Amino acid sequence: MCRAHLLEPAAAELLATELRQIVGDGNVLSDPALTASFGHDLTGRFNGRPALVVSPGDTAEVAAVVQACAAAQAPLVPQGGHSGMVGGGTPRDGEVVLSLRRLTAIEPVDRVAAQVTVGAGVTLEAFQRFLRPLDLEFLVDHGGRSAATLGGMAATNAGGSQAMRHGMMRDQVAGVEAVLADGSVLSRLRGLAKDNTGYDLTGLLVGSEGTLGVITRLRLRVAPLRPKRVTILAGVESLDGALAVLELLQSRVPSVQAVDFFEQAGLRRVREHLQLPAPFEREYPTYLVIECAGRTDPADELDGLLAVVADAVAADDPEGRRGLWRYREALNETVTSLGIPHKLDVSVPVASLPRFAREVRDVIAAVDSEAELIFYGHLGDGNAHVNVVGPAPDDLRIDEAVLELVASLDGSISAEHGVGLAKTQWLSLTRSAPEIRAMREIKAALDPRGVLNPGRLMP
Amino acid sequence: MCRAHLLEPAAAELLATELRQIVGDGNVLSDPALTASFGHDLTGRFNGRPALVVSPGDTAEVAAVVQACAAAQAPLVPQGGHSGMVGGGTPRDGEVVLSLRRLTAIEPVDRVAAQVTVGAGVTLEAFQRFLRPLDLEFLVDHGGRSAATLGGMAATNAGGSQAMRHGMMRDQVAGVEAVLADGSVLSRLRGLAKDNTGYDLTGLLVGSEGTLGVITRLRLRVAPLRPKRVTILAGVESLDGALAVLELLQSRVPSVQAVDFFEQAGLRRVREHLQLPAPFEREYPTYLVIECAGRTDPADELDGLLAVVADAVAADDPEGRRGLWRYREALNETVTSLGIPHKLDVSVPVASLPRFAREVRDVIAAVDSEAELIFYGHLGDGNAHVNVVGPAPDDLRIDEAVLELVASLDGSISAEHGVGLAKTQWLSLTRSAPEIRAMREIKAALDPRGVLNPGRLMP
Repeated sequence: MCRAHLLEPAAAELLATELRQIVGDGNVLSDPALTASFGHDLTGRFNGRPALVVSPGDTAEVAAVVQACAAAQAPLVPQGGHSGMVGGGTPRDGEVVLSLRRLTAIEPVDRVAAQVTVGAGVTLEAFQRFLRPLDLEFLVDHGGRSAATLGGMAATNAGGSQAMRHGMMRDQVAGVEAVLADGSVLSRLRGLAKDNTGYDLTGLLVGSEGTLGVITRLRLRVAPLRPKRVTILAGVESLDGALAVLELLQSRVPSVQAVDFFEQAGLRRVREHLQLPAPFEREYPTYLVIECAGRTDPADELDGLLAVVADAVAADDPEGRRGLWRYREALNETVTSLGIPHKLDVSVPVASLPRFAREVRDVIAAVDSEAELIFYGHLGDGNAHVNVVGPAPDDLRIDEAVLELVASLDGSISAEHGVGLAKTQWLSLTRSAPEIRAMREIKAALDPRGVLNPGRLMP
Repeated sequence: MCRAHLLEPAAAELLATELRQIVGDGNVLSDPALTASFGHDLTGRFNGRPALVVSPGDTAEVAAVVQACAAAQAPLVPQGGHSGMVGGGTPRDGEVVLSLRRLTAIEPVDRVAAQVTVGAGVTLEAFQRFLRPLDLEFLVDHGGRSAATLGGMAATNAGGSQAMRHGMMRDQVAGVEAVLADGSVLSRLRGLAKDNTGYDLTGLLVGSEGTLGVITRLRLRVAPLRPKRVTILAGVESLDGALAVLELLQSRVPSVQAVDFFEQAGLRRVREHLQLPAPFEREYPTYLVIECAGRTDPADELDGLLAVVADAVAADDPEGRRGLWRYREALNETVTSLGIPHKLDVSVPVASLPRFAREVRDVIAAVDSEAELIFYGHLGDGNAHVNVVGPAPDDLRIDEAVLELVASLDGSISAEHGVGLAKTQWLSLTRSAPEIRAMREIKAALDPRGVLNPGRLMP
């Protein structure tokens, strides 16, 4: 069986001609000056020179593009907002980028089913703007909302801060339409609440990082907007103390939907980067951002609870809430401003998080005593973002040491960012041989020529 | 490639000897007098004479049994409580039954993660009994709780009355352990809240009806017991009126978790069968069973709401609530008492349910004007159980007509019971050619010899 391989320039030119007939001249880029930006990821860690960038305008065009690339054995990299962290949507030299950004239709809301069908290229922020005047909300949210597309978020099963209450993308995707490697269109957009007719292909495509199909449309669940919101920024003395707060919140505050954490060192860097004021008179080792949302005022539920934290400030207006979240959400861009980071998004059982936080520091220092660690994440999910600045980007000893520590604590080497190109070599730290074999068999069955996002997700 | 085929008696005897060495003499049955009960389903529609019934005592034994059967090319039918409705767990003549009923371990509750690991053979009722003293509950429930095993419920993605609020089994299964067709053991029992390391094999196995793997253990989510419950039995004038009540409940009563419906004819049959009193002084065309559960008394939320229904009776004590549910839950056994039914569990978009209810009557009458229809289901999911008594069990014109009507309304030919043996021939009414092809490819990749539950789920 022939497998996809990098295109020679002449073959690329032939393919470009064919693709222009499908999507129109303006929607195929081959000039390196124009394609370059599609080849550099946000973190600076992944860089490739794509052979072509093709931007279809509807599902039929996506199907025709996939067929043409499959026939030409051209490796195809689906790309949404290109805000991923693991190189899953970043082309390597000579690969073809299939950009979904033109698929921006939002269909009318189905109020009875509480669902909306959207194009893969709609950004999370655009979707939020669409829903707000309708008194509806989408229950997955994260700091990358202005760039991230809903298709990309589905392909990577995006998580974010509210996952502790509402789950991840897979929980909010009622169905998908996707183009398979043979160019056929798989459509599961009826959004039926119950449909037990065979394998959960929707759930399989969600989180498959573009390796099994190209998601073109999504049927998303939406919820009535909960009008009452409170955001709290709190200082605590340790991550153990933070876990005590989490337990209280989970047992006594049904409206809690996010409990994120970060540390003193990260806060200092954010304040420097954005010239932000200090939130409290003194500094704390650990900070929490807590968010509650409900139909009624969460303040009653929170009553008395804040006495257990050393210091806290709350806001219930949009601007005030955004201001408090800014300390947490700006960490990602702040890290990038410091250099090309080692970014390790991992999870461990929640109870093991304090131990992980202590040991990860030692593990990193043992490799490079000068390395700077910026450590934050989502407490309720045991999800830590380990950012290390200093060591050369291609020195993988840090990554290896951190991921081995994660595995020793029964954690996952990727909590929400996916595997992409960044972590394939460590997949066996989290997934067993039978699991990886099963994944390979599924990939080979659905994409025998290896056209769709080759080299990602599996070693 | 050799494929599984029915065993000759001599081959069956050889296999039985091998299996006895794995699981012990008493756990392999070959005497037809002993195996017969494993071959007859609850509805009377599916009957087979298994070659053998083997009951392993742990995962390692299941793996060895699967390997032995694969080597002997013996078709293997995983069976839990054997309370399925579509013949998915009922053997055909000469197949080997792999009973999971001995896997009844329940591990200690992980309070931090709110998860429990259980053996596939634990019944739903036993699990409920285990959780109650711990002030915990499992969020999937249905009338077949005394027989249905959690493994079988996962394999079939069981739904039930509370799915409108809490989803189906797939939403409550945090991970599975399963034996694949090659005898390898796939284990996903860490229960991490976030783990984006490749394909969702757990979600794929859930609902795969034993065709991709044999589920041996499950990691299940549990929730704090909501102590306040109210059950309401209400009479309304039509299914359209019922939908108006549903809409009110969904917009104003956050604690609502079930809205089931049934009809006058069904109620009469249940009352005859069980000698139950009439719930109201007069009869109504349509009845609803509404259940609310919360940390605080749902009565406040319900205030004023019941004025919109013609007649209603409520109970908030366990016995009273069970008594009201009995009218609805006894419909299944009542139907079976009337003869061998045509059982069609289907779903349509919720708004189309009244139209479906009208048209299904005409469609059935057109095939057999004497046929008796007993129609009930889960209103919030658009899930209707179409039971038809009268026509010969092997006369499939009724089934065909009803399922074609479902398809014309963009519904699903199986809402929660699965496809099993009963509906493979109509799968294409709900799933497109690319979907069925993808399912076949996945099945062939993971079970190339067709050992696991062959002939089920796909045509």
